[in-house]
Amino acid sequence: MAPFHCLTFLTDYGLEDAFVAVCHGVASQIAPDLRIIDITHLIRLGDIRRGAVVLAQAVPYFPPAVHVAVVDPGVGTTRRAVAVQAADSIFVGPDNGLLSLAVAVSGGAVRAVSLTNRALWRNTPAATFHGRDIFMPVAARLAAGLPLDAAGAPVDVSSLVTLPRPDYRLTAGTAHLEVVTADRFGNLQLSLPGIDAPQAGLVTGATVTVAWDGGEITAPFVRAFGDVAPGEVLCYLDSGDWVAIAVSGGDAARRLGLRAGAKVTLTVREQR
Amino acid sequence: MAPFHCLTFLTDYGLEDAFVAVCHGVASQIAPDLRIIDITHLIRLGDIRRGAVVLAQAVPYFPPAVHVAVVDPGVGTTRRAVAVQAADSIFVGPDNGLLSLAVAVSGGAVRAVSLTNRALWRNTPAATFHGRDIFMPVAARLAAGLPLDAAGAPVDVSSLVTLPRPDYRLTAGTAHLEVVTADRFGNLQLSLPGIDAPQAGLVTGATVTVAWDGGEITAPFVRAFGDVAPGEVLCYLDSGDWVAIAVSGGDAARRLGLRAGAKVTLTVREQR
Amino acid sequence: MAPFHCLTFLTDYGLEDAFVAVCHGVASQIAPDLRIIDITHLIRLGDIRRGAVVLAQAVPYFPPAVHVAVVDPGVGTTRRAVAVQAADSIFVGPDNGLLSLAVAVSGGAVRAVSLTNRALWRNTPAATFHGRDIFMPVAARLAAGLPLDAAGAPVDVSSLVTLPRPDYRLTAGTAHLEVVTADRFGNLQLSLPGIDAPQAGLVTGATVTVAWDGGEITAPFVRAFGDVAPGEVLCYLDSGDWVAIAVSGGDAARRLGLRAGAKVTLTVREQR
Repeated sequence: MAPFHCLTFLTDYGLEDAFVAVCHGVASQIAPDLRIIDITHLIRLGDIRRGAVVLAQAVPYFPPAVHVAVVDPGVGTTRRAVAVQAADSIFVGPDNGLLSLAVAVSGGAVRAVSLTNRALWRNTPAATFHGRDIFMPVAARLAAGLPLDAAGAPVDVSSLVTLPRPDYRLTAGTAHLEVVTADRFGNLQLSLPGIDAPQAGLVTGATVTVAWDGGEITAPFVRAFGDVAPGEVLCYLDSGDWVAIAVSGGDAARRLGLRAGAKVTLTVREQR
Repeated sequence: MAPFHCLTFLTDYGLEDAFVAVCHGVASQIAPDLRIIDITHLIRLGDIRRGAVVLAQAVPYFPPAVHVAVVDPGVGTTRRAVAVQAADSIFVGPDNGLLSLAVAVSGGAVRAVSLTNRALWRNTPAATFHGRDIFMPVAARLAAGLPLDAAGAPVDVSSLVTLPRPDYRLTAGTAHLEVVTADRFGNLQLSLPGIDAPQAGLVTGATVTVAWDGGEITAPFVRAFGDVAPGEVLCYLDSGDWVAIAVSGGDAARRLGLRAGAKVTLTVREQR
Repeated sequence: MAPFHCLTFLTDYGLEDAFVAVCHGVASQIAPDLRIIDITHLIRLGDIRRGAVVLAQAVPYFPPAVHVAVVDPGVGTTRRAVAVQAADSIFVGPDNGLLSLAVAVSGGAVRAVSLTNRALWRNTPAATFHGRDIFMPVAARLAAGLPLDAAGAPVDVSSLVTLPRPDYRLTAGTAHLEVVTADRFGNLQLSLPGIDAPQAGLVTGATVTVAWDGGEITAPFVRAFGDVAPGEVLCYLDSGDWVAIAVSGGDAARRLGLRAGAKVTLTVREQR
């Protein structure tokens, strides 16, 4: 593929140590003019699902890029290291599901390789820091124009580890959903895409009963935070076009005691 | 205006999610070689005043730039989105006062537009993420050389929302001040500019009584932290040339129980 | 020296304020195309040793660069500001030991200057923000090709402040060590370089008794986290090639109650 203009980077490495910078340094030695954009390095340690969700939220807004993601509790074991092409972009990371949601929103894996070409690695990879020693050096070379095939042995894309996409069911006026993620603000993204919301009666002006194991509240379905009074709960389509629950000027995750993975039902009570 | 070499970015988006990266991605699609410098993304959620203070502290040290700032509790309501020229720079953000202190330290607004040219926005802006869908795409185009007038309808600069600048009064040897902000270190910046400090008797070597609702301490007015013993309170001119209170090697905000907005009086007791 | 392609930046300034961005702005005015890579800005306030350790961990992975580091509790006092050449890189910061470990891993100081050339500083340096007013403007000029000698008066490299390297002793099958640092994950890096580990019997498959003032545990010496069950303690060579202690999927610093500076002994009990 042609050289890429930018490389993105997502990890659970945190910002207190030199881990992230070291990877930037390694890349800058290989591709001095490559632009590296950090997505986040504050994924909770080892939380593959959260990493996958955040990566999938980010990639649609980038030009063709090499996306490097490392949330890798299995580092040093037998899990594969892979590079996966989807549309015009390449995803590099551990084959543990981390890349799978972003690959899916990019249209699905076209082809993939296992990063077995050790000539592209750093000399003697540490067993615990493949971001520095394998993922980033290979990714920087791919960004500089190295063909995907040169990075290692072909892998059947159907063998790539994928995370189950959070399920939802619509039954008799009730949407059975899951909390996909809570963001910094405590806004709760649910597993119902905006495009399917009207089918569940979730349209602007509807009144919605939100129920979960341990609680129930009623909230209006509105366009924006400012459409309800400060401190009020609202349902809305979030910026990724998913149905979400928030508290205007507050923290819904804390208020409702909900977090990623929790089951939630939404029932429309009335519609204006 | 001529193309800009750099764009700065300040928000309350936090660093755990993909919000900041998504905006970088959007900009990089429009202006691939534009340099983006993050000022901070850790403004407390919705704290417009804090955002305004930090932005105003930063901009004097940049070359001519497009400064994008988003602390926007009113997103999705009728508050205007604006671009404001001051000196050779352009400030882009919500018209809620966030930009006003930075515009003032840059010499005041020369002209402004409301960002009404929807052709410059992303296709279907989300009601809750104008940073991604309006502010950044418009700002990136302005940075690439788009004339300000092309971004929307002219706005009378006198109609721009401004924050009240924290007041101070000098009476009979006492300065009546306000805590403008506390930084990471707990250093308390007060509303008295260094240039007016001598008038209040605040010169190196003076002994100052600091009083507030709930407490009173005495501290020397010195040049640097190292001029007092570790753990001692000091008054000094901070790096922005404002009178400030700190604890050497400690946290004055916590020690004195003071934060932004608190009223404080400074009285010089003696002068060496 | 020839112009440098990149400049790295490490401080204890934190990410909530504009301090870091202001330094980026100052550099971008002097060297608009210089690439600045942040190592970290979350060194604990004034923790020179931690700053020195993190800087030394990072620099081996960078191309020749100007490395700026500021953890500077003595700012505004008589401590020197210095620029030190080691191999093909230049280190800029306070002469308080912060640079010393990185200079050592880079092969030692070749020559050094005290930053006495005020013509390179910002006009009127604040007593409390030498990062902005002295270190960064001088470093940016050095990165742009200014000869080291032009930055100030030569300094005898033997007069530079150095931190004691954490000691270790091997006696009769026991390694007497120190915790050098704990990273974000709570992994404890000890003062025994990997190259000397076999001499202490620390080889893959060994069983190690770790003892400290207040506790004792036994752990296997393995290659990677995945080699033990989640929640188990392990000894291993970390990514910087130092002997380290971790908890798989957990936080060893918290579990064992150990932190930087703590004394630890390692005794090999048996070897497979």
